[in-house]
Amino acid sequence: MNAGILNSIHSPTDLKRLSIEQLEQLAAEIRVFLLDNVSKSGGHLSSNLGSVELILALHYVFDSPNDQIIFDVGHQAYTHKIITGRREKFTSLRKIDGLSGFLKRNESEHDIYGAGHASTAVSAAFGFAYAKSLFGNSSHTIAVVGDGALGGGLSFEALNLLGERSEKVLVIVNDNSMSISENVGALSKTLNQLRTSRGYTEFKGRLHRFLPQRAVRSLKNIKTRVRHLLQPATFFESMGMRYYGPIDGHDLAGLIDNLRALRDIEGPVVLHVHTQKGRGYEKAVDRPDTYHGVGSFCPEEGLCSPSKQDFSSVMGEKLYQMAKKDSRIVAVTAAMSQGTGLEVFERNLPEQFLDVGIAEANALNVAAGMSLQGVKPFVAIYSTFLQRAYDIILHDIALQGCPVVICVDRSGLVGADGETHQGIYDVAFLSSIPGLRIWAPKDKPELERMLEAARDMDEPVAIRYPKDTAWTMNQDQSDLDRIEMIEQKGSDHLALSYGRTLKHICEAVEKYDLHVDVANLRQLMPLNFKELEELFSRYRRVCFFEEVVFNGSTAQKLKAAFSNIEVKTLPDSFIEQGTVAELLRKYGLDVEGIAHVLRENKS
Amino acid sequence: MNAGILNSIHSPTDLKRLSIEQLEQLAAEIRVFLLDNVSKSGGHLSSNLGSVELILALHYVFDSPNDQIIFDVGHQAYTHKIITGRREKFTSLRKIDGLSGFLKRNESEHDIYGAGHASTAVSAAFGFAYAKSLFGNSSHTIAVVGDGALGGGLSFEALNLLGERSEKVLVIVNDNSMSISENVGALSKTLNQLRTSRGYTEFKGRLHRFLPQRAVRSLKNIKTRVRHLLQPATFFESMGMRYYGPIDGHDLAGLIDNLRALRDIEGPVVLHVHTQKGRGYEKAVDRPDTYHGVGSFCPEEGLCSPSKQDFSSVMGEKLYQMAKKDSRIVAVTAAMSQGTGLEVFERNLPEQFLDVGIAEANALNVAAGMSLQGVKPFVAIYSTFLQRAYDIILHDIALQGCPVVICVDRSGLVGADGETHQGIYDVAFLSSIPGLRIWAPKDKPELERMLEAARDMDEPVAIRYPKDTAWTMNQDQSDLDRIEMIEQKGSDHLALSYGRTLKHICEAVEKYDLHVDVANLRQLMPLNFKELEELFSRYRRVCFFEEVVFNGSTAQKLKAAFSNIEVKTLPDSFIEQGTVAELLRKYGLDVEGIAHVLRENKS
Repeated sequence: MNAGILNSIHSPTDLKRLSIEQLEQLAAEIRVFLLDNVSKSGGHLSSNLGSVELILALHYVFDSPNDQIIFDVGHQAYTHKIITGRREKFTSLRKIDGLSGFLKRNESEHDIYGAGHASTAVSAAFGFAYAKSLFGNSSHTIAVVGDGALGGGLSFEALNLLGERSEKVLVIVNDNSMSISENVGALSKTLNQLRTSRGYTEFKGRLHRFLPQRAVRSLKNIKTRVRHLLQPATFFESMGMRYYGPIDGHDLAGLIDNLRALRDIEGPVVLHVHTQKGRGYEKAVDRPDTYHGVGSFCPEEGLCSPSKQDFSSVMGEKLYQMAKKDSRIVAVTAAMSQGTGLEVFERNLPEQFLDVGIAEANALNVAAGMSLQGVKPFVAIYSTFLQRAYDIILHDIALQGCPVVICVDRSGLVGADGETHQGIYDVAFLSSIPGLRIWAPKDKPELERMLEAARDMDEPVAIRYPKDTAWTMNQDQSDLDRIEMIEQKGSDHLALSYGRTLKHICEAVEKYDLHVDVANLRQLMPLNFKELEELFSRYRRVCFFEEVVFNGSTAQKLKAAFSNIEVKTLPDSFIEQGTVAELLRKYGLDVEGIAHVLRENKS
Repeated sequence: MNAGILNSIHSPTDLKRLSIEQLEQLAAEIRVFLLDNVSKSGGHLSSNLGSVELILALHYVFDSPNDQIIFDVGHQAYTHKIITGRREKFTSLRKIDGLSGFLKRNESEHDIYGAGHASTAVSAAFGFAYAKSLFGNSSHTIAVVGDGALGGGLSFEALNLLGERSEKVLVIVNDNSMSISENVGALSKTLNQLRTSRGYTEFKGRLHRFLPQRAVRSLKNIKTRVRHLLQPATFFESMGMRYYGPIDGHDLAGLIDNLRALRDIEGPVVLHVHTQKGRGYEKAVDRPDTYHGVGSFCPEEGLCSPSKQDFSSVMGEKLYQMAKKDSRIVAVTAAMSQGTGLEVFERNLPEQFLDVGIAEANALNVAAGMSLQGVKPFVAIYSTFLQRAYDIILHDIALQGCPVVICVDRSGLVGADGETHQGIYDVAFLSSIPGLRIWAPKDKPELERMLEAARDMDEPVAIRYPKDTAWTMNQDQSDLDRIEMIEQKGSDHLALSYGRTLKHICEAVEKYDLHVDVANLRQLMPLNFKELEELFSRYRRVCFFEEVVFNGSTAQKLKAAFSNIEVKTLPDSFIEQGTVAELLRKYGLDVEGIAHVLRENKS
C-alpha cells in the first residue's frame, strides 16, 4: 500500500505538524497498513486495530522519549512502532532478526520499557516517576494499560502505591472490555458501568476548548459533575487516584483535548479510554479473541479454522471428554481459554470451567483450595506465564501436597513471540520444588494417557507440552514413571530425551539410518537414578537432548549424576524470536543438529 | 498460670457452651497465656494479642472444621490453635518437632489451609467455596485476612474474581492498621476513612438483637444507612462485594451478633473488623512492629535491643552510609523495613526510602523502572518472599539488564518459621535466570564490599546472606568475581563453599586441625569454569558444601561440570522448623557434619 500521510511520518515530531483531519486520515491509513502487514506476517491484530487513535493522540500531545510512554504488554503498540521510525521494518515483524512484536528497549529510544507479560506498566511507570521526582525532572510519565491487565495483582499493587503518593503518573486505562478472552472480574463490571453511564460524550465536548493552564481548575468542576453521574463511585477513587472519563478512544479531537488538559495535573491521574478491539476490520470486531494473535491469513476471507490439531487442542479435547464423565474435574484458565484449547470445554461444561482473568497466581491458588475440597483442578497455563505463580506452586500446592494438575502449555521454544515468551525456564523452576512430579509426553496419545493418570493421582503433577501440531509415534502402554524404549537396535549408543526433541531424535535416526537406540524419559521429576543407572550401564555412549536452558535443566541433573553422559540443551541466555524451526536449527536441536551430535561418536 | 475457663476448652464445641461474659473472661485468660508463652518461646505476639476476640467469635458462631476458617498468613491464629486442642503443646511452639507458628494441615483438622506467606486466604477460600458449590455443600467458608495482606496483588485478584461470582465466602478484614511495619498504600487510607467515620458502634448496637433468619432483610436496611455514613463509597463495593462494618474487633457480643447476621447471606460478603495490634500488652500496643515477631523476653521489662549485629543490620547500616553520599541510591522494601535492617535508613533518609507494602513483585518492578531512570535501587527482601517476584526478576530486570541490586535477606535456613520460610530455593530459581549475577559474602566486610561493588555495576546483582549474627573472618581485597583462598596449607584436599557454610568449614578445620585447604566461591553466578578447573586441578580431592536444596544448586552445577568433586547440600525436600543449629546438625552442615565429610578422605 502506498499511504499518503503515513509515508511522511518518520518520528513523532512529524506527527505534531498535522491537523486533526490529517490525523484522522493517518489513523485510517495505519489501519490499512496494520491489516495488510499483520495478515501477512501474523501477530497481534485486534488490540492494535483498537489503539490507533489513542497512540496517535499520546504522541501528538506528549514528547517521547523525553516524556515516557510505557505500554503494558506492548502487543497493543504496533502504531507506536509505526510512527517511531519502524514502519519500513514491519515486513520483518516477529521474524528472526526482525522487529519484535512487543516493545523492546534496544529497538528504539521510544521503547522506554519492554514487556511481553501483563500488568507491569503502572509499576514501572511509578519507578520512572519516582526517579524523576528525586532528580527534579518534570517530564511526563504515562502508563497505558488494558482493562484486562488491570485485573492482574501487580497492577493493583502499583495503583495502591501510586494512589497515596504524589508522583506524577498518568495512567491510561485502554478499556476494550476484553482481556484476551472475554473479560472476567468485578472490576470489569465496574468499568462497564462507567462506560454505560451517560455523560460520556458530554465530558469530552466540555474539555474541547480549555487551555492547559486553565485545565486544573476546570477539571475540578467537571470532575464533580462527572462523579455525580457515576454510581457507584469508582474503584480508582477508592484507590486514591483522580479518575477522568470514560472518553471515546476513537475520537482523536477528544483524546487530544483530554490529554492536554490532564497533562499538567500534578500527582497520579487515571484517564479511562473506551476503545473497540478490532476496530475497522469487521471480522476482528465480531471475534476479537480469535483475531487477538493470528498467523498469516487473507483479509477478505478471514481466518479459517486451523486444519491441524495442536497439543493445546488435544489437551482441551481429552480433558473435556474426561470431565463429561467426572464432575470432580474443573478446568481453570487465566484468560487463555482459546490459547490453551479449552473453548469446547468452556462452551459445553461451563459449570466445571473457571476463567480467573489475567491472574496466574490466583488461578493456581484457587486450584489449591479446590483440590482440598474434592475437586480435581487442571490449570492450563503457558509456561512463560506460569513464572508468575512460582511461589504459589511451591508454598501452597507442593508444600501442602494439593493434587492440582498443571498443564504447562507452550513449553520449550515458542517462536515469534521471542524473549519474553520462551517456555524454557519451567524445568528449572519447577524441578527445584520438592514433591512436584513433572511429565512431558512424546506425542498425542501419551499426553492423553498422562492427563488420565494425573487425574487419578493424589499429588501435584505438571505436564509440559509444546506449542506445536500434535503427532503420534506409537501406542506404548508402559508405566509413565518408567523410561520407555523407543528404538532397540542392539546399539552401544543411546539417545535419550522426551517431548518434541524425542521426535526429532527419531527423525534423525530414521533419516540418516543411525545405529542408535532411543529412549523416552517422560518423567523429569522425580528422576529414578537406579533405573537410569541400569539403563546407562548397557551403553558405551549416552546422549541426552533437552529444549530448555542448561542451568536447572534435566540435562544438568543427569550430568551431575552420570558424569560420562553427553548433553545438549539451549544456551543459558535469553532466546530471540524466529520460527521454532529456525531457532532449533540455530541452537542445534533440530533433526540435523541432533544427527550431527549422534554421528560424532566419540569414544 | 492456672487459667479457670481456658483449661476447660479442648475444642470449639466447649466454647459454644459459654456465655458472653465467660467468653470475655476466656479472652483475658488467653491474652495472659499468649504473653506468658510467647515471651518464653518467641513467636508472633502483636497480631495474636489483637485477634483473640475475633477468633473466639468465629469459632463460637461457626462450626469448624465443617465450616472452614482460612487464616491469611496464619501468624495471627495462635488463639485458633489454643482452642482447637493444642493448648498443652504450646511450650513446643516453633521448636523442632513442635507446634508450627503458622497453620499447618497435618497439625489439626481445624487447620484447613496452611500459609506462611501473605495474601493467599481469599483465593484459597474461593477455591473451597467453588468446590462446595459444585458439590451442593452448603457449609460456610470464611477467609480472615489482615489489612496489610489485603494490599498484596493476590488478594486483589481473588476479590476481583469473588466479587462477580455467587460463591458464598465471608471475608473478614482484620484491620489493625499495620502490615508488619506501618501500613502503606491507598487502600489502607480507605480503610482508615471507614474506621474513623461515625456510626461504628451504632451499627454494632443495632444488630444486637437480630435473629439469623431475619438478618438478611434487616441488614439491607442497616446497610443503606451505613453506606450513607461513608464517604467515599468503599473499595469493596467497587469490587462487587457487599461490605459491612467497620465493627469493634474486641467487643465479643457485637462480633458474635454480626457474624450470626452475616452467616446466612448468600454470595460474597466483607466484614470489616477493627482490632488493635498488641491489645492488652502496653509495650506491644506502643511498638506493634517491634513486637510483631519476637524472641524470648521478660514481659515486665519488654524487649531489649539486640546486642549483636546481624547481617540485616550490617546491610542496612552500610547502605545508609553509601546513600548519604549518593542520592542515586534508593532502598526499597516490601513491608520489612525493620526485618531487613532499614530502620535507620528509613528514619534518616526518607526521601531515598520506599516501602511498597506486602507486594514483592511490585517492589522489584518499581525498582526496574527506577533503575532505567538513573536511580540505583537496592531491594531488600527475604529469600522466601522473593519467590513471589520470580517472573519480574526474569522478565523485567534480567531481560532488560536493569541495574537493580537485590539484597536477599534470610537466605539459607531460617529456623523457627519452618517449611514456609526457609530460604533454600533462591539459588535454584535465581541461577536459571540468564544475566543475573549472584554473590554471597563470607562475612561482614565482604557483604559491605559487595554492596559497594554492586552499586558500581551496570547490571542486576543479587547478594544473598543469612539470618544470623554477623562475623568477621579476614580483610581480603581480591576481586569479588574471583575465588578467594582462605586457607593454603599445601594440602591435596580442598574444601569450597561460601557464606555461612564457609565459616563452619573454617571452624571445622581449626577445631579438628584438618590438613585441608579452604576456598571462598562467593560468586555463584556466573561460574568461572576455567578458574575452577585450574583450581581443582591442584587437588586430589575437592568437597563443596552448600546450604540449599540440591536441585538447582551450585553444587549440582559444579558436579555436572566436574564429575570428581564431592558435594554436600540439604536434601530435596521441605525443611521443617527448629533452630538453625539443630537443622544444620540434622542435615550434616554444621561444624561436626562438615568435619565428618572432610575427614572421610576417600581416595
